[in-house]
Amino acid sequence: MTNTSTTLRESADHRLRSRAARVVPGGMYGHQRAGLFPANFPQFLAGGNGAIIRDVDGREFIDFLLGYGPMVLGYQHPAVEEAAARQRALADCQNAPSERMVELAELLVDMVDHADWAYFAKNGTDATTTALTIARAATGRAKILVERHSYHGAAPWCTPGVAGIQAADRENIVYFDYNDLASLRDAFAEADGDLAGVIITPFKHNDGVDQELITAEFAGALRTGCDAAGAVLILDDVRCGMRLHLGSSWRDVDVEPDLSVWGKAISNGYAVSAILGRESLRDAATSIFSTGTFWFAAVPMAAALATIAELRRIDGVGLQRRAGDRFKAGLVDQANAAGFEIAYTGPSQMPYLRFVDDVDHKLSFEFSEAALEHGVYLHPRHNWFVSTAHTDEVIDRALEGTGMAFNQLASAR
Amino acid sequence: MTNTSTTLRESADHRLRSRAARVVPGGMYGHQRAGLFPANFPQFLAGGNGAIIRDVDGREFIDFLLGYGPMVLGYQHPAVEEAAARQRALADCQNAPSERMVELAELLVDMVDHADWAYFAKNGTDATTTALTIARAATGRAKILVERHSYHGAAPWCTPGVAGIQAADRENIVYFDYNDLASLRDAFAEADGDLAGVIITPFKHNDGVDQELITAEFAGALRTGCDAAGAVLILDDVRCGMRLHLGSSWRDVDVEPDLSVWGKAISNGYAVSAILGRESLRDAATSIFSTGTFWFAAVPMAAALATIAELRRIDGVGLQRRAGDRFKAGLVDQANAAGFEIAYTGPSQMPYLRFVDDVDHKLSFEFSEAALEHGVYLHPRHNWFVSTAHTDEVIDRALEGTGMAFNQLASAR
Repeated sequence: MTNTSTTLRESADHRLRSRAARVVPGGMYGHQRAGLFPANFPQFLAGGNGAIIRDVDGREFIDFLLGYGPMVLGYQHPAVEEAAARQRALADCQNAPSERMVELAELLVDMVDHADWAYFAKNGTDATTTALTIARAATGRAKILVERHSYHGAAPWCTPGVAGIQAADRENIVYFDYNDLASLRDAFAEADGDLAGVIITPFKHNDGVDQELITAEFAGALRTGCDAAGAVLILDDVRCGMRLHLGSSWRDVDVEPDLSVWGKAISNGYAVSAILGRESLRDAATSIFSTGTFWFAAVPMAAALATIAELRRIDGVGLQRRAGDRFKAGLVDQANAAGFEIAYTGPSQMPYLRFVDDVDHKLSFEFSEAALEHGVYLHPRHNWFVSTAHTDEVIDRALEGTGMAFNQLASAR
Repeated sequence: MTNTSTTLRESADHRLRSRAARVVPGGMYGHQRAGLFPANFPQFLAGGNGAIIRDVDGREFIDFLLGYGPMVLGYQHPAVEEAAARQRALADCQNAPSERMVELAELLVDMVDHADWAYFAKNGTDATTTALTIARAATGRAKILVERHSYHGAAPWCTPGVAGIQAADRENIVYFDYNDLASLRDAFAEADGDLAGVIITPFKHNDGVDQELITAEFAGALRTGCDAAGAVLILDDVRCGMRLHLGSSWRDVDVEPDLSVWGKAISNGYAVSAILGRESLRDAATSIFSTGTFWFAAVPMAAALATIAELRRIDGVGLQRRAGDRFKAGLVDQANAAGFEIAYTGPSQMPYLRFVDDVDHKLSFEFSEAALEHGVYLHPRHNWFVSTAHTDEVIDRALEGTGMAFNQLASAR
């Protein structure tokens, strides 16, 4: 799937970038700014189907980013699109929710052990922020423990940006480090007497560093510490949800959170997020006022119902694991054959490849650039994703591209 | 359009409420909780077309709430739905934006005088919060002046809720009262030396009180005060946008803001919001990190393009004003004839009816309850909306229902 390059100035992408530079700050903003990628990555995309995406110049790529996670069944999945279309013909944005909301809440409560109720929002950030408010309402306390470099969204309390953010926005946040018991003990001590809760991702999936599964000891210390303090343990499953285990990403860790936060992959690309919680937090969740005009929209909830049904029907987690394992095995072989030492970390469904001794991610960028040239879309610093549309045949085609990319890097040395 | 009542226990709405009570906090939350309405209002809705909505028991109503504002062209508008469907067949949620984003930014910059760029988000709350961050990034200061009872969303800095909210969340907020020059002067003085900006709605559309247009003197004082302090004047046009003037709701007031925030009606029910800003704030908007997985989704942007094109083509603001004027004239006559003294305030496109000397909104509730019984959906405490689908014939049918409601109230006295 080698793409014929158009020179930059002639490309539709370039023309759109010039127009965007006039009417969009910086030409683009946030995580979708092309400046975060090697130069050959497109700023604009035109469409996708299954595991394949297409840019505005007609180049096609096998995608391992999936809209930053949501497209767990692949783009344009028929069952999801049909369910969404059926609901859309009835209603979407209304004065009140549709029946779909009750069905989705019932499904999630049935599927997730610690969930006795569901509260829906729109973005991951809405939902993590609402979870903090619920923890504070439940405890009457202020402090939240947060892992130092984890991404929980882009609200003032958690954005990785600094511009425009005030000390007050983080006055009640206390930081610790992932899997570092001493730092956790210090954080619990610092918040002692005013601890509302702890928020943590199921594993350490921070950008640009090796991914780490949570240790049993650390998960246990989170649970014990929250129980001792009467605080709320919040699992931020926005990025991992529907990828490691449908029953929440800590299902195989012997710890249950009190609240969990979901988004991205629960609806295969439709905008909806959710907070799931224990019975003991129902009154607190009832007492807060967190809402939005579009939060109750019916179409994303219909899409979520169809997405989850399909993931159950086809063993979606198993298929993702199979695709991820195949990709990993191939990439590790290719790296070895080309003489590169790599660290391949994270669950294979959400892997991260780092070149050992790679200063400033230079090799990662070169590898992503070369892979894109050979038809494979790999983020240079963010974890990758596979979908259930990444069949053996798709993975093997992707490996052809990455094989050429590794060889290109090797011969450039 | 009198509806045959089903008794509560037999109704589909009641059965859904019972199910929701088990799996949704409080049975429902936020502004869409049926507990905020008279008892005969449905908790769940099944669909709508034009100005008509239908509940899960098949009752139909002429709607004056429009999803709390978005459905400015009415439900299931063909041109919007076609544009959305066309885009959906290509792409929605992707790794990067679509061409539609550039087109929409160009359209808004062309349409709104103070706009040199557009920054898109998902909800109104995302967008107002991002506007504050831009103002703070631009000035390097912290304080924001906010009208005491105005709704700017449901994030911790602005939610009308109190549970779970901390003093730190509002440490940098300074309050003033709408059209009250003395309170504004005090607020400017209190924030002196650390003022980032002021956020204000185009007119006072607070719930449960008479609506007030902004006075020329007050708007002038906002502009002068911000200019003198080097602070950013933010117009929160989320609720009013596309209703009073397509070029922003202060187009007829002789003051331009530095930033404006849009949502709701810009896309006829699809989830997208926007911050529009002056050239002088472009660098600040570029410097911040505020983003979301679903913010760049293409379908809502295609819907917004179609919505605005249609509003321009049919003089959407003029049609709303015509419908609103006709409704107002009819209601004022009916109230007089039935012997009720009412205050009918706000622009006729977004009116609010208050019964004079109505203790605890008791008469408002009884009126909404009676109107619903006669097929007209009117919020008892929140401003109403009309759409371009509220033709003369629809308004006249609604007035038949409200006429009966007034008579019912009169004979109950």
